[in-house]
Amino acid sequence: MEVDRAPANLLQCPWLPVNIGGCQFLAKSWFGDTAYHIVLTDMNCVWEERMDSAAIQSRAQELNRRLRAPVRAFFSHLCEVVQPCLSGSCEQAAGEVQISLSRQEDGNISMKLKSELAGLPFYWEFHCTPASVTLVCVELVRPLLAMSRLLQHQVKQLGDLLLRKDAEIQDYRENGAVLSRERLQTEVFEEQTYREDFMAKALPLLSPEQQDTLGFGSDLQQLYAAVTAHRKARKRQLSEEHIVEQDKSSTQEPELPPSLGGGSVSSEPAEKDGEQTHNGQSAAARAKMADRSPVKQSPPVTSNPAERASSKPKKKKVGLFR
Amino acid sequence: MEVDRAPANLLQCPWLPVNIGGCQFLAKSWFGDTAYHIVLTDMNCVWEERMDSAAIQSRAQELNRRLRAPVRAFFSHLCEVVQPCLSGSCEQAAGEVQISLSRQEDGNISMKLKSELAGLPFYWEFHCTPASVTLVCVELVRPLLAMSRLLQHQVKQLGDLLLRKDAEIQDYRENGAVLSRERLQTEVFEEQTYREDFMAKALPLLSPEQQDTLGFGSDLQQLYAAVTAHRKARKRQLSEEHIVEQDKSSTQEPELPPSLGGGSVSSEPAEKDGEQTHNGQSAAARAKMADRSPVKQSPPVTSNPAERASSKPKKKKVGLFR
Repeated sequence: MEVDRAPANLLQCPWLPVNIGGCQFLAKSWFGDTAYHIVLTDMNCVWEERMDSAAIQSRAQELNRRLRAPVRAFFSHLCEVVQPCLSGSCEQAAGEVQISLSRQEDGNISMKLKSELAGLPFYWEFHCTPASVTLVCVELVRPLLAMSRLLQHQVKQLGDLLLRKDAEIQDYRENGAVLSRERLQTEVFEEQTYREDFMAKALPLLSPEQQDTLGFGSDLQQLYAAVTAHRKARKRQLSEEHIVEQDKSSTQEPELPPSLGGGSVSSEPAEKDGEQTHNGQSAAARAKMADRSPVKQSPPVTSNPAERASSKPKKKKVGLFR
Repeated sequence: MEVDRAPANLLQCPWLPVNIGGCQFLAKSWFGDTAYHIVLTDMNCVWEERMDSAAIQSRAQELNRRLRAPVRAFFSHLCEVVQPCLSGSCEQAAGEVQISLSRQEDGNISMKLKSELAGLPFYWEFHCTPASVTLVCVELVRPLLAMSRLLQHQVKQLGDLLLRKDAEIQDYRENGAVLSRERLQTEVFEEQTYREDFMAKALPLLSPEQQDTLGFGSDLQQLYAAVTAHRKARKRQLSEEHIVEQDKSSTQEPELPPSLGGGSVSSEPAEKDGEQTHNGQSAAARAKMADRSPVKQSPPVTSNPAERASSKPKKKKVGLFR
């Protein structure tokens, strides 16, 4: 089993398509030494469970009355049987494993597991509750927005490259060159026409569900990995250069193409493991909010009062206040 | 003021960059006849407030003791002063408007507004609480994933087109054509090399924040509009064809390119306005969950027991159970 990593590294785990009890999800999971953090989504909701050593010990005891062992002793078995299931390869789980999933009326998800350990049945349950919006922002919204920006920039670059190819082709033809094989001739690329044509054809093909990956195919998985790994690298680099504590507004950024200038993927997540509570707000976020002045009064935004008076003269007579 | 639209249409409203009280957000807002739904995000969290006629009347009364008027009478004024602020153009708000924003310790956001109505001060407050994860999935995660898929598909198509341009160019050159202007010559396009080079150059340019749009620039805004408008069109089409009530698994889908096959943008949102409660779960979602059998037992997933026994023979002696 791998050594404990900081749970913040969940960001760099891929979203893997899994089928649990006949239901399709994308799953992210991190297993430490005697702790875990799993996240599931069906694209309608996102659920998670974080468990530390003490919580794991306590639940194992409840579910397995005869179990008397330190958490480390049975946690490796739990990892062996669960990790393959959360990586989309249940058939590789060690030993005989039964996993069932139930969606509860309160919106939670329960995953029950039965396997065999030391010749006796071993039971485990994952109790997944709706994740905080902050986690959804960090693990999905921000990376997806960064991916869209990168792809949009690629589309722009490739379009520019096509225009240059056309200029080269035009030069050959204007100098009398002809094709030896007619079928090699391409149409002149026009960005606007191409985009309109693409949207007209591609949008109707957006299907409601793709059963196996929920739309998160391998190309996008690669891009997700690149975007999230970059975030880590950038953080480390900033740390090494001792500029983390500097006022970020004064940090020099390289000149950005407009289509890449945005996004928050590289910014610090507001959420840190262990500080998060289950009401949808992390302690870090609350602290951050508390740091701000409670009421930021913006300068009064004033339009031309004369204009208002002339355009709405009858408002005075409405008599809303008595 | 526009007539009441179904609040489900919030999906088709754009995410507009706004600056409220010195804080940058992306905002979505829907204003009906005497109801509204606003959503704000700073990409770390997402907040919302939905108010119906009765709730608006009640709050207006609390904040403006002397106000005696039906909700319709002052709601149009509220729209006039607030809508420009939530569209990123506060300077166009009618009359003198002061808006301040405060982040509360409980994670909520409060937006206080003071304007003038019928010669007297008019006060309003928006109390935004963290949105449900389902809303974040519907309004951000699913559209962003669909956008990424579309863009990925465009990148693939443009790459293929570049290969065809290169084949055409090669044919001219093999037949002796030369360029009249050297500078028009392009390098042969190699997809893999291009992608690696792009990622090496583009990733470091992903900036932590783009102050004006939080990364949701105009190109992506257009794509978001196309993706969400398509969802509506598709829903209407399905409805007109009277196949909504059919078993969706039997609905014929056109053949899909692999890169477009996924995604949930066109599927029904689990959340309907008016049914949602503020604990992050909609009544519709709960009903849906309750409809399912409480425990779905998956078929036992069994690996080769002999293999397990041989590879982990010592587990039997650990004595986890006593």
